[in-house]
Amino acid sequence: MKKNILLLIPFLLFSSGSWSQNTKAEINKKVSDLVSKMTLEEKIGQMTQITITNFEIKGKPGVLDTEKLKEGIQNYHVGSILNVPNPGAATTKKWNEVLTSISNEANKTRLKIPVLYGIDAIHGSSYTAGATLFPQQIGMAATFNTEIVKKGAEISAYETRASSIPWVFSPDLDLPRNPAWSRTWESFGEDVYLSAQMGTAMVNGFEGNDIGSKYHVASCMKHFIGYGSTTTGKDRTPSIIPERILRQFDLTIYQAAIKAGAKSVMVSSGEINGTPVHASKYLITDVLKKELGFEGVVVTDWKDIIYLYTRHKVAENNRDAVRISVMAGIDMSMVPEDYTFYTDLLDLVNKGEVPMSRIDDAVSRILKMKFELNLFQNTVANVKDYPKFGSPEFIAVAYNAAAESITLLKNNAAVLPLQKNEKILVTGPTANSMKYLNGGWSYNWQGENSDTYAADKMTILEALQNKIGAQNVLYTPGADLANYDDAAIEKAVALAKDASKIVLCLGEKNYTETPGDISNLYITPSQTKLALALAKLNKPIILVLNEGRPRLISDFEDQMNAVIQCYLPGNEGARALADILYGDVNPSGRLPYNYPRYPNSLEKYNRKYTESLGDEEQNNDAKYEKSYSPQYEFGSGLSYTTFEYSDLKIDKPAITNTDTVTVTITLKNTGKVIGKEAVLLYLTDEVASITPEVKALKGFQKIELAPNESKTLTFTLTQKDLQFVNNDLKWISEKGKFKVQIGNQAQEFMLN
Amino acid sequence: MKKNILLLIPFLLFSSGSWSQNTKAEINKKVSDLVSKMTLEEKIGQMTQITITNFEIKGKPGVLDTEKLKEGIQNYHVGSILNVPNPGAATTKKWNEVLTSISNEANKTRLKIPVLYGIDAIHGSSYTAGATLFPQQIGMAATFNTEIVKKGAEISAYETRASSIPWVFSPDLDLPRNPAWSRTWESFGEDVYLSAQMGTAMVNGFEGNDIGSKYHVASCMKHFIGYGSTTTGKDRTPSIIPERILRQFDLTIYQAAIKAGAKSVMVSSGEINGTPVHASKYLITDVLKKELGFEGVVVTDWKDIIYLYTRHKVAENNRDAVRISVMAGIDMSMVPEDYTFYTDLLDLVNKGEVPMSRIDDAVSRILKMKFELNLFQNTVANVKDYPKFGSPEFIAVAYNAAAESITLLKNNAAVLPLQKNEKILVTGPTANSMKYLNGGWSYNWQGENSDTYAADKMTILEALQNKIGAQNVLYTPGADLANYDDAAIEKAVALAKDASKIVLCLGEKNYTETPGDISNLYITPSQTKLALALAKLNKPIILVLNEGRPRLISDFEDQMNAVIQCYLPGNEGARALADILYGDVNPSGRLPYNYPRYPNSLEKYNRKYTESLGDEEQNNDAKYEKSYSPQYEFGSGLSYTTFEYSDLKIDKPAITNTDTVTVTITLKNTGKVIGKEAVLLYLTDEVASITPEVKALKGFQKIELAPNESKTLTFTLTQKDLQFVNNDLKWISEKGKFKVQIGNQAQEFMLN
Repeated sequence: MKKNILLLIPFLLFSSGSWSQNTKAEINKKVSDLVSKMTLEEKIGQMTQITITNFEIKGKPGVLDTEKLKEGIQNYHVGSILNVPNPGAATTKKWNEVLTSISNEANKTRLKIPVLYGIDAIHGSSYTAGATLFPQQIGMAATFNTEIVKKGAEISAYETRASSIPWVFSPDLDLPRNPAWSRTWESFGEDVYLSAQMGTAMVNGFEGNDIGSKYHVASCMKHFIGYGSTTTGKDRTPSIIPERILRQFDLTIYQAAIKAGAKSVMVSSGEINGTPVHASKYLITDVLKKELGFEGVVVTDWKDIIYLYTRHKVAENNRDAVRISVMAGIDMSMVPEDYTFYTDLLDLVNKGEVPMSRIDDAVSRILKMKFELNLFQNTVANVKDYPKFGSPEFIAVAYNAAAESITLLKNNAAVLPLQKNEKILVTGPTANSMKYLNGGWSYNWQGENSDTYAADKMTILEALQNKIGAQNVLYTPGADLANYDDAAIEKAVALAKDASKIVLCLGEKNYTETPGDISNLYITPSQTKLALALAKLNKPIILVLNEGRPRLISDFEDQMNAVIQCYLPGNEGARALADILYGDVNPSGRLPYNYPRYPNSLEKYNRKYTESLGDEEQNNDAKYEKSYSPQYEFGSGLSYTTFEYSDLKIDKPAITNTDTVTVTITLKNTGKVIGKEAVLLYLTDEVASITPEVKALKGFQKIELAPNESKTLTFTLTQKDLQFVNNDLKWISEKGKFKVQIGNQAQEFMLN
Repeated sequence: MKKNILLLIPFLLFSSGSWSQNTKAEINKKVSDLVSKMTLEEKIGQMTQITITNFEIKGKPGVLDTEKLKEGIQNYHVGSILNVPNPGAATTKKWNEVLTSISNEANKTRLKIPVLYGIDAIHGSSYTAGATLFPQQIGMAATFNTEIVKKGAEISAYETRASSIPWVFSPDLDLPRNPAWSRTWESFGEDVYLSAQMGTAMVNGFEGNDIGSKYHVASCMKHFIGYGSTTTGKDRTPSIIPERILRQFDLTIYQAAIKAGAKSVMVSSGEINGTPVHASKYLITDVLKKELGFEGVVVTDWKDIIYLYTRHKVAENNRDAVRISVMAGIDMSMVPEDYTFYTDLLDLVNKGEVPMSRIDDAVSRILKMKFELNLFQNTVANVKDYPKFGSPEFIAVAYNAAAESITLLKNNAAVLPLQKNEKILVTGPTANSMKYLNGGWSYNWQGENSDTYAADKMTILEALQNKIGAQNVLYTPGADLANYDDAAIEKAVALAKDASKIVLCLGEKNYTETPGDISNLYITPSQTKLALALAKLNKPIILVLNEGRPRLISDFEDQMNAVIQCYLPGNEGARALADILYGDVNPSGRLPYNYPRYPNSLEKYNRKYTESLGDEEQNNDAKYEKSYSPQYEFGSGLSYTTFEYSDLKIDKPAITNTDTVTVTITLKNTGKVIGKEAVLLYLTDEVASITPEVKALKGFQKIELAPNESKTLTFTLTQKDLQFVNNDLKWISEKGKFKVQIGNQAQEFMLN
């Protein structure tokens, strides 16, 4: 991992906070001793994960039904529980009560094995009231700052443990290949190197050196593998990924996170090339467990064993589905609403269709994680141990992450930064709600209650009012996200006449998973209509995008004076945006994906040469519609200052296949304000037996420079950076020329 | 192949027309004798294909430069020539002169080996003035009538031989996976079974029993393989096709055409999974030549060996590219504008980098085809031998093909057929040009001169005027295909006031290959604007689509009373359309692809279950945007009569893995007019270890029924129909339930 040279953000150092330290050998001994004492029923119970809502009293949201809990834990030996008690995000106190009830019940069992609680804390401890909420992953990627990503995960771990929960279903290591996919924003974007670096940082932040510490949690890589690659862009539809490509791209991200120590993995709900991953012994056992040596827990996603027969149709019935998936290598089933998994697996083992060795492998992995998490000593947190929960110190990190993520994509005639003494119109459907800043997985699944839970946080409108005084801010929503409203547009147009500039806030509703499916990547027509109506006024328009995926804006982009992408910046995002709009913070985010211009032109930045023929390749007989012209390219991001790149040097003109390559580059801030710059190193293999990419990211560093300050950065390229996966599924490099590009600088070297 | 029960189209029986008949053994003997006499230079010349324009006098279009021709044939021993002398489609007389010049030059060489001429005759002999032009392949597929497809190819062969040309680069066996692809219309659509049946019919029509006959030609399957599957939809960009899927779908079509005897194959210009097909020894030699036993000629596409280094970057230089592609199994290089292939290959063989055995394999295949084509006896046609060229008899077949292809997609309140005594407005940019009826590959590459060459043929406007009298037809173009023209719209709106109904002709410009690339699948905005303006008049609108691929119409489709898809119906298409609009012909075409509703929802009809979750699968917590809802589904097509399906029967409730299945169904014409019906049989494997398709076409028959007439049809399903390719790349079937669906009838059977 490349290091960040300079970090100005405030930061906390946690004490180790260890409750106990176990050596690997000690834990293995404890696990095998325990397994040897367990009945088959107890073992299968460990593999069973049930949703907490199953244990609530019907009609009494959030109130546990002690009889149901007793039934689950005593009769079915349930080893894991997940999800959120109704009606939504609980306080740390409420979480403490829930986990205490569960713990008490577990302590009444024969072997007193603690129950493992898991939660979708994906941008902070987002199911706990008052927690610090960060930008969603796509924004974290846009910071190009691994340190801040790691710190965010540390804080998230702290606040999740403060909620008595030791296991988070994060990070997301998906590699979205169709930007319409509804979970694009849960990923680190389209680049494999960036995703691997950020995934590593997040695992390190969650897990620290010891997940038994009371400040750390077990992470869960998801969704193994190929989940984000659906052909049609719809969630949980088929992916087509030849194994060569799977290994060169998707698998590389998992390798990095496993190397970082990730303790568990969640399996993709989708299929690859016709095989549901939950049914793939090859991918789960042969590749993940054996080849990559993954020793952690493999958990299913929601209901996915059941779906093997109801949706995928690879199993005749649930029993068949359980057999297929457990034999494929699944350790724990997120069943999660009944005991069919338990009952059917018991029958399968009793009839010899699933061997005890497979059960023992699964249970040992689960118990190992429970020991590592120190759950046998401490399953419930003491809220008093977590004084920094939701503290200003933590909030400052979330603010800084948002500030480094927000990406300035266009700034014609330096319309930004704005002047504080000019009157602005703030309009657009996303201008005044916390829902659109946080997106899904915030307080509840679809994130529709952010305005209640984050009532003390600022919307974009509120942050701007706070910044320049309410008297300087005119506001009207102007449009609905979905429905046409001509009267609303007329109102915005009328109000604009009193403003000197317009801040137009467009974007998307809050969503995740299948409810976020779309069939049209264009931004909604009701918003386009508002943009076109305002554009007719000939007043400068600052387009603020607040969206989980790149919704097309080419119908009006040329009429916008500035464009700024916020992604889903979280609770502190609006403050960061306001500071950027007024120049108190200099923007430094960079796009982690290609922003398409048209719906049927979804090329990636690391395209092949055949996807972007230059003018010299145009045929004389006919004019070609240029095939590669994204609205904004991966890595785009402007600043209020200018950086000059110079003196790109490679330490040797030619190397052998054992050398590393050292690359240096000098940057100077040639503008008038201090600024951060994400410095991106791209490598090109000029000729290769597998058609080479036009360029591929192989390094990045984020630095800050004062005006006139300059600095020389060093990057190291390893042999692995020169390699690709060939048709024999081997990582190889080939002799020949390579080109390094940083900024506007380029140099070649030879591999001999 | 399923047989068509009833054929009312007129038909001709060719006499065998053989100039000579050679047995396979005799030809092999002749080939080896000749090869043994050849120098290396002569051999490499045979593998070299050059464009005819290289042999023209500069500045004198269509005039051959005898010195250049002598240089090519004497010095470089050129074995094959292709393409069209400038400025465009030549008469049979002109072709005779060109081929005579070439033949005379070849006869002056040491061994007098004839030159093989190849041409892109893809919908009739489309580079010969006055030839019979058929609907493009996508329309031929829509007929669901293999007999008419075969007859079209027979006529095309006859007229190509009349032009002295013995080799056509047809049929197209591509399987387009992205409907935006610019060559979608050159294919048989999205279904593998339909494509295999139609490809077989076309090969049979071209080649007959003996390609040595003066009425037949050698066909060329193209583009082996995966060419039509580009991820982005842009021409000649990368395809991603795992081998399991390649074998189950794409390769199946080639297997069928090879079984039908196809004599040659053209290689895909694209890459699959990172390997350009021209560089794939695995695909060309191991799979095509060895595994499938293909004994014919493997020719490159235009300039594709050069592109291995200039575009694909898998070769350092041209010499390297020649080595890679010849060693991969290429027999002939469509170089086609220089002698670099010749020079570099000569050097490679001389230096031992390409073995003589590889050269002899290539040359033997080429010479075998030349002997089979009888070129050593007759390279030039006697125009008098072809009295039926462009005859009414041939034109009637093209008319019938168009009439059976045109597909009625919507007919609200039976607005069609129209009454001959009502005044109509004909408008839209495609209403009055032959360019849009013929598309690309018509008279020249991009087809822009169809109005000159087909001046005697009727445009849609002319056919309607001819049908009901010019006094009943108002006309104004209404819009440009590309540019907004508000004045033109106003004129159309004004004129519409005098008409009782509007025939709105929308579609696409003429195009093929990369010039046809688009980034947005929506129909052009200038046309949408016209449609919306006319819709405000509340007059019935008949939308006539004239397009190579399904351009999205969902912005206004709900305001159209009828929708009729013409595809690219060729020179006789407008007459057929007019007859259908007025009920003189009952439409019987069916869509050979899913017509999408939105640009980012491109699901195929044979989707997986996960792509079309039913209501029972909707989550209670959130409303899902339904993922599968094409504008019109594959197989859609209305009639002016009604057909009742009944008595679907399967001969046995359970079968073994050696049985065939006999399916019978009864159809009755329950309407008031005679009509043809394409009867489609779909099979569903209800549970399988590779996620099964929701349904897959496994049989079709086209029949005609008079009112009240009924008929029972029989289909046979073989074991192969029950099989799929598993992860070990084997074709297997699995025990369990299968479901047969025909029309609204369904029955299950068991495989035990």
